[in-house]
Formats: sequence, C-alpha cells, structure tokens
Amino acid sequence: MSLTQLFEPSGVAVVGASRTDGKIGYVAMANATQFEGPVYPVNPSGSGELFGAEFVPSVTEIDGPVDLALCCVPGPAMPDVLAECGEAGIGAAVIYASGFAEAGGEGEKLQERIVEVADEHDVSLLGPNTSGFLVPATDLRCSFASGVEEVPPGNTAVVAQSGGVAHVLGFQSRRQRRGVSAMVGLGNRADVGFAEAIEYFDGDDRTDSIVLHIEGTDDGRRLLEACRESDTPVIAYKVGQSDVGAFAESHTGALTGDHELYTAGFAQYGVPTVDATDDLLDAAAALGNSPSPQGPNVGVVTAQAGPGIIITDRIQRAGGRLPELTAETNARVDDILPGITYDDNPVDTGRPMPEFGDLVAAVAEDDRIDIVLVYELFEEALGLPVDTLEGLAERVGKPVLFATEGIEAELAAERDALEAAGIPTFETPERAADAAGVLARYARLHADDAPEATADGGRSLHSGPRGVPGEVPRDE
Amino acid sequence: MSLTQLFEPSGVAVVGASRTDGKIGYVAMANATQFEGPVYPVNPSGSGELFGAEFVPSVTEIDGPVDLALCCVPGPAMPDVLAECGEAGIGAAVIYASGFAEAGGEGEKLQERIVEVADEHDVSLLGPNTSGFLVPATDLRCSFASGVEEVPPGNTAVVAQSGGVAHVLGFQSRRQRRGVSAMVGLGNRADVGFAEAIEYFDGDDRTDSIVLHIEGTDDGRRLLEACRESDTPVIAYKVGQSDVGAFAESHTGALTGDHELYTAGFAQYGVPTVDATDDLLDAAAALGNSPSPQGPNVGVVTAQAGPGIIITDRIQRAGGRLPELTAETNARVDDILPGITYDDNPVDTGRPMPEFGDLVAAVAEDDRIDIVLVYELFEEALGLPVDTLEGLAERVGKPVLFATEGIEAELAAERDALEAAGIPTFETPERAADAAGVLARYARLHADDAPEATADGGRSLHSGPRGVPGEVPRDE
Repeated sequence: MSLTQLFEPSGVAVVGASRTDGKIGYVAMANATQFEGPVYPVNPSGSGELFGAEFVPSVTEIDGPVDLALCCVPGPAMPDVLAECGEAGIGAAVIYASGFAEAGGEGEKLQERIVEVADEHDVSLLGPNTSGFLVPATDLRCSFASGVEEVPPGNTAVVAQSGGVAHVLGFQSRRQRRGVSAMVGLGNRADVGFAEAIEYFDGDDRTDSIVLHIEGTDDGRRLLEACRESDTPVIAYKVGQSDVGAFAESHTGALTGDHELYTAGFAQYGVPTVDATDDLLDAAAALGNSPSPQGPNVGVVTAQAGPGIIITDRIQRAGGRLPELTAETNARVDDILPGITYDDNPVDTGRPMPEFGDLVAAVAEDDRIDIVLVYELFEEALGLPVDTLEGLAERVGKPVLFATEGIEAELAAERDALEAAGIPTFETPERAADAAGVLARYARLHADDAPEATADGGRSLHSGPRGVPGEVPRDE
Repeated sequence: MSLTQLFEPSGVAVVGASRTDGKIGYVAMANATQFEGPVYPVNPSGSGELFGAEFVPSVTEIDGPVDLALCCVPGPAMPDVLAECGEAGIGAAVIYASGFAEAGGEGEKLQERIVEVADEHDVSLLGPNTSGFLVPATDLRCSFASGVEEVPPGNTAVVAQSGGVAHVLGFQSRRQRRGVSAMVGLGNRADVGFAEAIEYFDGDDRTDSIVLHIEGTDDGRRLLEACRESDTPVIAYKVGQSDVGAFAESHTGALTGDHELYTAGFAQYGVPTVDATDDLLDAAAALGNSPSPQGPNVGVVTAQAGPGIIITDRIQRAGGRLPELTAETNARVDDILPGITYDDNPVDTGRPMPEFGDLVAAVAEDDRIDIVLVYELFEEALGLPVDTLEGLAERVGKPVLFATEGIEAELAAERDALEAAGIPTFETPERAADAAGVLARYARLHADDAPEATADGGRSLHSGPRGVPGEVPRDE
C-alpha cells in the first residue's frame, strides 16, 4: 500500500460538499480549499460554485487531476462512493462517517463491505470514524474541525488512533510553538493502520520523529515491526492502564488490551513510551531535533538551585543517570566561574551569569556525559546564551536540552534562536527532565545499535529483538 | 510573629540600593519602586535620586513610614543592618544574600547571629538566601528577578522553599492566565518558615488556596499542624524522591528527608500532594475556585471520545472513581440528545453539540456525582457553553472543571468567561484529570469534616488527626 495519494495528492474531491455552514461537508470544504492543488466540491444536488470551485455531480466527472476523496456522506453511501472513486482513478479516501465497526452489528458488516470495495478498486482508506488529517507544509487540511489552519508546519508526525486526540496534539504542538509535519487520526483503521502510517512517515523528508497515540489494536506485531524498521525515532503513548474497556470499544472499535504487555513490547522493539500528550510532544522535540543519544548519563547545568533539584530528582526516576563529572571538568568549571555554587553534577551558578554558556559547553564536552539538560530562568539583562550554544549539540554529538521560564514577550525571540541553534527548549523543569528521561531510555533501548552495519544498509534500531514476542493479545 | 509588616508594609527601604544596572541593589530597587507606598533607596555612599526617590544614608534616617527592609548587602553586613532596622522601627526584612547556613561553617554561625539580632529587635526575617516575594495586587515586588511586574494578581498563594522555584511558579501562573495572591521564596527559613507563611495566607482575603514547594525541613510537625489549622486548602509538592541530598543541602541548608513519610504525613493532615509544578497550580485552581468536593466520584462529559478515554483512564489512577450514572440521568441524557454516542459515565457526544451544556448540567445534578470534569475541543461556530454553565458549580455545590484546546486567539474570551462563571479551565486532558484527582483525594482526606461543628468555630479539616505522627525525621 502506498500512501502517496493520501498524503501527497495532485487534487482533492470533497464528496458531499455543502453550502450549509456548520455541516461537515461545508467545514471540510472550507479547510480543503486552502490546499495548494485543485479542490473539487462533489454533490449531485449542488450547483454553481463553492469557495470558488464549480460543483461536480460525481467524482467520475471531475475534469482534472485528483487522487484523494474526502467523504462527507453517511456510511451507507460509502460502498457506491468508493466504487466511483475507483472508476475515477482516485487512490485514497478519508471516511469521516461513524456507524461502522465501533457501532457493532450492521456497522461491522458495512465496514467489511467498504474494505472489500476499496480493495477491489485499489483505494486506500483513512477511517472510517475519523476527523481526518493535516499536512501543514502543503496546506493540505482534510479535517472538519475549526482552527486547523493555525497548526504550523513542524517535523513531528502525529499518528493518533483517535481523531480527537490527533487534533488535541495538533493544537498543543501549536501552543508549544513546534508544529507538525503531519497530524493523522486513524479512526477505525479499516485499512490504513499504525504500521502503514509509520512506514510512510519514516520515508517522509519533513518528518524527524513519529509519535503514536494508541488505545488498542489487534495487530500489535505489525505495529511493533513497523516501529523497529523505522529509521525515524518513534515514541508511543498507550492509553488504558485503568479499566476503560466498554467506553473505549464504543469509540474506535478497539479494546485497550494489556498496558504492561504493550509497554514491554514497545521497549523490546526500541520504542520509549510516555504517559501524557504533552510528554509525547516534548519527547518528539527532544529526539527529533538532537543527535541520537549514546547513553543514559545526563549532565545538568542550572542557574537556579531549586529547579535544579527538581530536575535532578526527576531524571533519575525517568530512567536517566547523573554521574559525577570528571575531575578535569570540575577544574574547568571552577576556572570558568571561581566560587561557583556547586561545581559537580548538577553544575549550579546560583543565578544567571555571563559565563553560563561556557559552563554548559564544559559539561557537554565531559566524556562521562551523554545528554545535557540546562535550566535557566530568563534574565532580560543577560538573555539566553545563544551564541555560545550555537552548534554545540552537533559538535559534541549529544542532545542538549534547555528549559527556561519568563515573560513570553521578552523570551520568545531568544528561545526561537536556541531552537534554530539545535537546542530544543522546554517549559517546566519537570517536562524537560521527562524529555531527558526519554532520551536516556531511548539510548538504553538502542544500546546495541550498529549503524550502517546491518544487512539492509539502514540503521537497525536493534541488532535484533531479544526474542520475538507474540501478538499483543486482545483483552477479551 | 505577625507578617503584616512583611506583606503589607506602609513603606519599603531598599538597603544597598545601587545605580549600577544589573546589580541586585539596582534590580530590587527598580522592582520595589512599583509599590503603591513610599520606597526609599538606602546607601551611605549614595547621593541624589534613584527612580525618583532621594538616597538616605541609613534606615535610621528615613523620614516617613517604613516597615520593610529589602537587604541587598553582603551577609556579614547583616547584623548591623538588622540592628539599625530595629532602631528605625522596621519590623520585617528580606535577606537576599547567600553564604549562611547552606554554606556550612562560618555561614551557620552568621545565620545564628542574624536570628539573635532580629529577635532582639523584633524584626521578622525572610531568607536569607532567597530571591524574595511578590504581592501583585498591591504592586509589592520584593524580588531581584526581571519580568516579575508581569506576574498578575490571582487567588493562589505560592510558598516555595526555593526562591527560584517560587519564580518558576509565578511565571507559570502567568502563562496559565491565573496569577497569584502572593509568591514567596522562603530560602533558608532562618525565621519565617512554612508554618508562619501558611498562617498568614490563611488569614489573607485575597488567598483561596495555598501551594507549598518543599525540599526538606527539620520542623515537619509545625508545618503539618499549620496545614491542619488552615481553613484555606493547602496542596503540597515535596521534591526529592531520588537521592539529591548533597546538592539539596548546598541549596537552602535543608535535607530532603524521606519522601514517603512526608506524603503520609500530609495525607494525615488533610493535604493532597502532587508531583510537578504545573500540577500544583492546576490543583490550586481547582480547589481554590470550586465548592469543596464532597466525595471522589467524578462524572465526565466529553465532546470527543479520545480525550474522554484519556481522562477516564487517568482519573482512576489519580484517586477518583467513575460511578455509573443513575438511570434517571441516563434517561435525561438520552432525552437531551437522542442517539448520543455514549450515555453513561463518561457521557460522550462524539463532537461539540448545541446541547453540550445541558448534558453537563444533567451529570452535575446526578446524586452519585461529586465532581464534574468536561472536555471539549473548541469549535468556533458553537463556542463554549458559558451561558448554560454560569453558576452551575455553585448551584449544585460541586466542582465543575473544564478542559479545552484550540487556537488561543479564538478561545481566550470564552475560556475567561467560563472562569468568571465559576468553572476552572485546564489545558490538556491529563492535567484536567490530575486536578480532578486532587479534588477526589482532598474529599477523601476531609471526609470526616463537620463544618461549623468544631470548638473553634472554624472549619476543622479533620475531626482530628488519626494519631499524631512524630517529627518528620531528617535524613542523615
């Protein structure tokens, strides 16, 4: 299955496009028309223009390039619509309607039927029961939610089982000034599932990290294997530690399964897991914008002891280690800032200092350190040490994370400059520590990596899994 | 000890005020001059004016009302400065300098000496080794950090052991659009400690919740007793589950102690604990702006199933329960929205609907429900159900929390209206669920409460502790 027609269409048909504001067929058309390619409103009862495009009665009568159909019609109409899509050479369709497998009974049969028709006509399906997807870089917005035009381009691909959670993550990524390379809600996964999405985004030039939101799946092995094959780091958020079975099944037709089995499975296949939406995006920012971490040893540099203690405490619980620095680094630190508050790990200057950036560089160059985490409350008179840290992560080949806090208007430009200098930034001491913890766990999970040494020439995430686990079982 | 002179001074003296930008004596003066009362720069080598006020050579020569001295001078000068403060009738002093007990040796002796002098002259001390405090409502900004003028007034008092963490929390509260009634960094707690601060803010009309950041204390019993005596809800964040002892001791002279003992102690004295700075402020917003929760039973209403599952899962781990709704409520829900996606707990509408507010009210009125948590992705065409929810929490006597996500510019006005209508708002499904979890735990910890039935006429947080624990031990 190729998802090129889904995520990189030549043109888009909105089937069931409507003039009535508030209807899905209206909002989907409003969002779709932002796309850089042609967009066609399709409705047998439509006439005239909608958002500047002429209504077409059927996808088979579109006169122009079109690969993707956004289907805003009720479920029972879908088999016919998909057959017409096939006839028209449309290779991908998004089905927003619900009332399929998640509803049980007749819905399950309807879902089987659309899969048959789609297979027969070689149409890839996203959904049903999804609120769609976004590719901000090409203004491709196949969602019926409002505000999606404001989700900016970034380098994280969000792949969520729930369309709602996909949108939560998209809007969060905006609030965090990060953005997404794509944001996809898989819904019922009748056809396109986690494995296909991971494979596609692993090959996507705009994507440097892939995050998964998972409620449950009956095809755990394929998901895990796709994760292992991915050269792009994958981070997973598996929901459902408590009993949410009945409600979850009503959602996307999925059972939540055994949480511990999932966590162990992901670890075995090289995927660190997190436990919240904001942690997921933080981890993606850390992994997707840093050199690959080579070990779990974190060096902390802080300008305020209190946040430094919070970080020191939390990193150890998150899977990192805080080794002592080498005597050489201690001496170098004392030389840079005589009388420094604390010269070992964490290095603490007590308050922001002009020498702060040099201290960060000294810790980053310590051979015992694999990952650097910096905390500094923003002091306007000093600013952030952007010049000193420019290119540091790349030069030492280690992730350097930076958490700061202050008045947004004063801080924004310098924080953006740090990001541009290869230093991912974070909002709270805890979230930065948790992101560093993910880097540490990622390093442990990939400790056996031998880049370029594998038969397939790619970066194998493992020399091999430590025993192939069985299917992640359904929790009946 | 009365802290009135510290937090409600008639006038402020900045001892060691300086013309040199960047020096503590300059920044502290710049921040202090925003105060509504008179502010005097004090420096024997100063002359002329600083920020419009005439230099005074000594606090004893101030001609006007003054209760509070902000001391920007080195530690060894402090005994003399405090004696002069006493002579001048100044009843409170903030000591920014470090090099006291946290430094050991001579520093410990110096700390003992300043406490003696302060006692002798009846001066309350904040610090030493603190970055100060803020009372935004009166523009009283006794801090040497930049940007503090932007921390807005709110109804949460932040009491942090670390001045740095106090500022982290202050700036966070601004980012969350909440603000603080006060923000205090206790530092070494040579004189004013947790107990004194809690007592003061419990009596402060602007304060509806008190949050504590604790690294360690050798006077755990007094802290716990102050918490129990407080009519204002207290929430605690105890840092130091991992080994951070040596670094922590270098900070504010405190050992972090046994985390589990603290957690148990807080629970016994009616204080829910959390594990992150943002959780602390979320919990304060939930407890400080809601009717007191009467039980741990949470009713969830969601417009998107995915975030609903996240919340359902997480609340149970956070200490809440999700009971089934009554058959009457099920019927009422079905009546309000026939064909609703899910009519029990969580009630799920699948997407935002005009009936959403009515459904929230139906769940809030269910007798099995003690706490209501709502999730709705913002849909611009529908807005948030502000009118329907106006006054709901007060009418049903239950907390109603609302989490939403969308584009800030579209969402801000309606979210502010919800807050004004008595509905605290939250940013992510997880943080809202964690806040509801704190409410549930608070309700459990206070299940024996009999308001107005205690001898002192106040709201006793317990009928009595279940056995008085010993001192929270130092972790030697």
